[in-house]
Amino acid sequence: MNPIETSGTLKTVLNGALPDYIDGYGAVKPFQGAFRDEGIKTRKAVKLRSVIPGDLKVLESLDQALDRLNIKDGMTISFHHHLRNGDHVLNMVVEALAKRNIKDLTIAASSIFPVHAPLAEHMKSGVVTGIVANYMSGPVAEAISRGSLKKPAIMQTHGGRARAIESGDLHIDVAFIAAPTADTYGNINGVEGKSACGTLGYAFADAEYADQTIAITDNLVSFPACPIEISQVFIDYVVQVESIGDPQGIVSGTTKITKDPVALIIAKRAAEVIKASGLVKDGMSFQTGAGGTSLAVAAELKKIMQREGVTGSFASGGITGYLVEMLEEGLFKTLFDVQCFDLKAIESYKSNVRHQFMSASMYGNPHTKGAVVNNLDIMILGATEIDIEFNVNVTTGSNGVIIGGSGGHSDTAAGSKLSIVVTNLMKARLPIIKDKVTTITTPGESVDVVVTERGIAVNPRRADLIQKLSKTKLPLMTIGELKGMAEKITGVPKGLETSEKIVAVVEYRDGSVIDVVRMV
Amino acid sequence: MNPIETSGTLKTVLNGALPDYIDGYGAVKPFQGAFRDEGIKTRKAVKLRSVIPGDLKVLESLDQALDRLNIKDGMTISFHHHLRNGDHVLNMVVEALAKRNIKDLTIAASSIFPVHAPLAEHMKSGVVTGIVANYMSGPVAEAISRGSLKKPAIMQTHGGRARAIESGDLHIDVAFIAAPTADTYGNINGVEGKSACGTLGYAFADAEYADQTIAITDNLVSFPACPIEISQVFIDYVVQVESIGDPQGIVSGTTKITKDPVALIIAKRAAEVIKASGLVKDGMSFQTGAGGTSLAVAAELKKIMQREGVTGSFASGGITGYLVEMLEEGLFKTLFDVQCFDLKAIESYKSNVRHQFMSASMYGNPHTKGAVVNNLDIMILGATEIDIEFNVNVTTGSNGVIIGGSGGHSDTAAGSKLSIVVTNLMKARLPIIKDKVTTITTPGESVDVVVTERGIAVNPRRADLIQKLSKTKLPLMTIGELKGMAEKITGVPKGLETSEKIVAVVEYRDGSVIDVVRMV
Repeated sequence: MNPIETSGTLKTVLNGALPDYIDGYGAVKPFQGAFRDEGIKTRKAVKLRSVIPGDLKVLESLDQALDRLNIKDGMTISFHHHLRNGDHVLNMVVEALAKRNIKDLTIAASSIFPVHAPLAEHMKSGVVTGIVANYMSGPVAEAISRGSLKKPAIMQTHGGRARAIESGDLHIDVAFIAAPTADTYGNINGVEGKSACGTLGYAFADAEYADQTIAITDNLVSFPACPIEISQVFIDYVVQVESIGDPQGIVSGTTKITKDPVALIIAKRAAEVIKASGLVKDGMSFQTGAGGTSLAVAAELKKIMQREGVTGSFASGGITGYLVEMLEEGLFKTLFDVQCFDLKAIESYKSNVRHQFMSASMYGNPHTKGAVVNNLDIMILGATEIDIEFNVNVTTGSNGVIIGGSGGHSDTAAGSKLSIVVTNLMKARLPIIKDKVTTITTPGESVDVVVTERGIAVNPRRADLIQKLSKTKLPLMTIGELKGMAEKITGVPKGLETSEKIVAVVEYRDGSVIDVVRMV
Repeated sequence: MNPIETSGTLKTVLNGALPDYIDGYGAVKPFQGAFRDEGIKTRKAVKLRSVIPGDLKVLESLDQALDRLNIKDGMTISFHHHLRNGDHVLNMVVEALAKRNIKDLTIAASSIFPVHAPLAEHMKSGVVTGIVANYMSGPVAEAISRGSLKKPAIMQTHGGRARAIESGDLHIDVAFIAAPTADTYGNINGVEGKSACGTLGYAFADAEYADQTIAITDNLVSFPACPIEISQVFIDYVVQVESIGDPQGIVSGTTKITKDPVALIIAKRAAEVIKASGLVKDGMSFQTGAGGTSLAVAAELKKIMQREGVTGSFASGGITGYLVEMLEEGLFKTLFDVQCFDLKAIESYKSNVRHQFMSASMYGNPHTKGAVVNNLDIMILGATEIDIEFNVNVTTGSNGVIIGGSGGHSDTAAGSKLSIVVTNLMKARLPIIKDKVTTITTPGESVDVVVTERGIAVNPRRADLIQKLSKTKLPLMTIGELKGMAEKITGVPKGLETSEKIVAVVEYRDGSVIDVVRMV
């Protein structure tokens, strides 16, 4: 579907030519299609230090912990992002390592937020020379885009990160697990304590596969913690600090559905597409992000499910109070939760056995015996840009600056039976549909439908869906027509000029390279 | 503490000389002490077949499953024992393989019960030539003792089995997981369905580390099962059969405390020893087996805890309704459950978040970052024989026939602060305390106290405990005195005569060889 041509040292992938080798990254395995690299895979061997009776795990301070962990120049240390923009742990650890004159660290954080701005300074000073993340926004993303990081950043997907850690592609020397609650023997949960964040799905592979793992907590409890999400068998040390995060930044109190009339039209149309697809039936499954428009699709879908008396099997992903309500109303049998987005989700996860945990690996790792995304019927996706081949960009803005990343975008698009991008046709007077997206995050082969306020385009690969939708009154058109419609209003935007320097490598979930980001 | 002398090709361990090499087993790593083989250890790499969207896991029949699994002569297949003496799965699978003329199988079953009697026939016919188990009783154990198995059986501990599987010492080609409930994508739990058995703690390492894993269920449910104990990411196939087990044999309706007056005296004395040890205080932890005397100790301990207003941290192990009551009465904060012994335990595990799961590895694997046994204060143990060095035999009867095995005996003895063997001084007119036990299951260095109806002996290594107990009115004596007291009544029993042929190798939890069983 995506033929590869090799010419000299360049390999043509979806978005143009890629070098064979990228300095600071290594050999490039070019993307060849969503399921071209499956089959027999290996979960790597792990070395660990046995803990015997009498050994104590609680250390007195972060400083004592850093002595014990013996972190050296050039190591990779990892963090999870469940504390989101309230996280204190990443900054605290990197600051302490900077004071020790450690250089050349790689930070493998599942996501990076504006709160991590101090990292930009550590990049300048050479303390941090590599970053691996599934999503990044704010000053660090901006600094990387402008060339401040010595090596190219590596952008992964949520499932791809778990795959990389489990396979050994991403070796973690020390995992720092921000732990809302930890007991004295290293059992961890995210549901108790002043910094409660809910599930710890993104931290699992780190804890299991790092050479050493340490829990950093602001709620140290006596043995044993209850419940236990991450087991003592994976934790070397525990250290208590004053605060691991700012609750204001960790979760939103409530998640709200958009009131924007255009977004509501898009949501309604998306729900009609879902209905017409024939997937609204008992056992159906559904995932959407926490954005206002995405939640509005859930609200529309809910009406249809109620009207038709349909009970779904599961909803998944990052979980909001809105999905909790659908669970409690019996519209879904269960929720699979990799990350709680709001207080209602945390409370439900804590108290309702049908609100189930999933690790990032179980969520989206393509190299397991079956991820949850494989069973997903309907996925609602966002986009900053889409091209006429249905490739989607959620990594960079149209100015070329990194503003996000795949997160679970590519994982869910690949796994689901029906992936729908919902977006305004124009944003800030710029058209969203282009001949070529600035950066390919998710390949067009996994994207089925684009729904805008002006019209709906179906990927020509989905002839079955086009046939079904033709029978409705929905405003079907080609993606080219949608693009033309926007350009009539906005004009054709100028192409982006970037330097040749590669500042980030975009890895597909299987570890192949689907695109690169160049310096702006 | 246990010096090793090497002479020729024999190595002297606790119970005499061991060969360097045992045919059908391999090189012998002799036992050198309970914590002599710790430090840096490896969890092995695992190869797996990726499952992609559209792949189906449910197979039509066991026969189709066996076709797919491609089981060959000489392979190792594994089973868990949560269905105990009600298990249908082991017999069903081995019978089907015998019909296919497969030979030379090794059966790695966490335990073997009388219900598995047909295995003895398969041993004779050469279908099965190896057995690895933590416990075995009934016709299979008898047949092994009489030399029917081609290779020596390997007897492990519950923690040692998990260690062996995770390290790669015990390679499993195909794990068959008897699943009281499985969904169509391989998520498993043990709490729902007609064959519900509670937690599936012993099956975890098998599922994670086998080359291929298949769930055999009599309760196939639509995706997703809830709760999920073993995740879809470890399961290749699912097959439904009529029945995986006989509920009568799976769990007892209730577990009863002994009414035998002698046993009640022993229990009372054991509780007094515990009290005198100073361990009865807030945060204390406790484990006991499901036997009548052991439960009677729990009942006595309960009275003391209530009287003193003490709240324990946890009770662990196989869980009975009696421990559930103690949890519900607030005497323990939580339970760690590797296996439910009765219906009350299953119900509690299903509904009470404080009744927590533990895998066999988390329970007792010495090569993790800390097993639950490491935090155990008080352990009540059984014994078929004890010697004057406090070595305990729970593997063979005094006639040399295999009647059990360590299970968690050696794991908990090694981990706990105070391990107490409770036993009658004589059983069936035979003394329990001997110069040498027939087989060493658990080394004397991990056994602190022996409590009988006639007197109490403390291991001389525990001078601290002897000092504390001397201040009480408890009938303290040396183990030699206890032995003499029994022999006055029973006389000195004749030594056991066995052939030289080794029929079983007894592995300590770290994989070293602590003893062998010879043919009777």
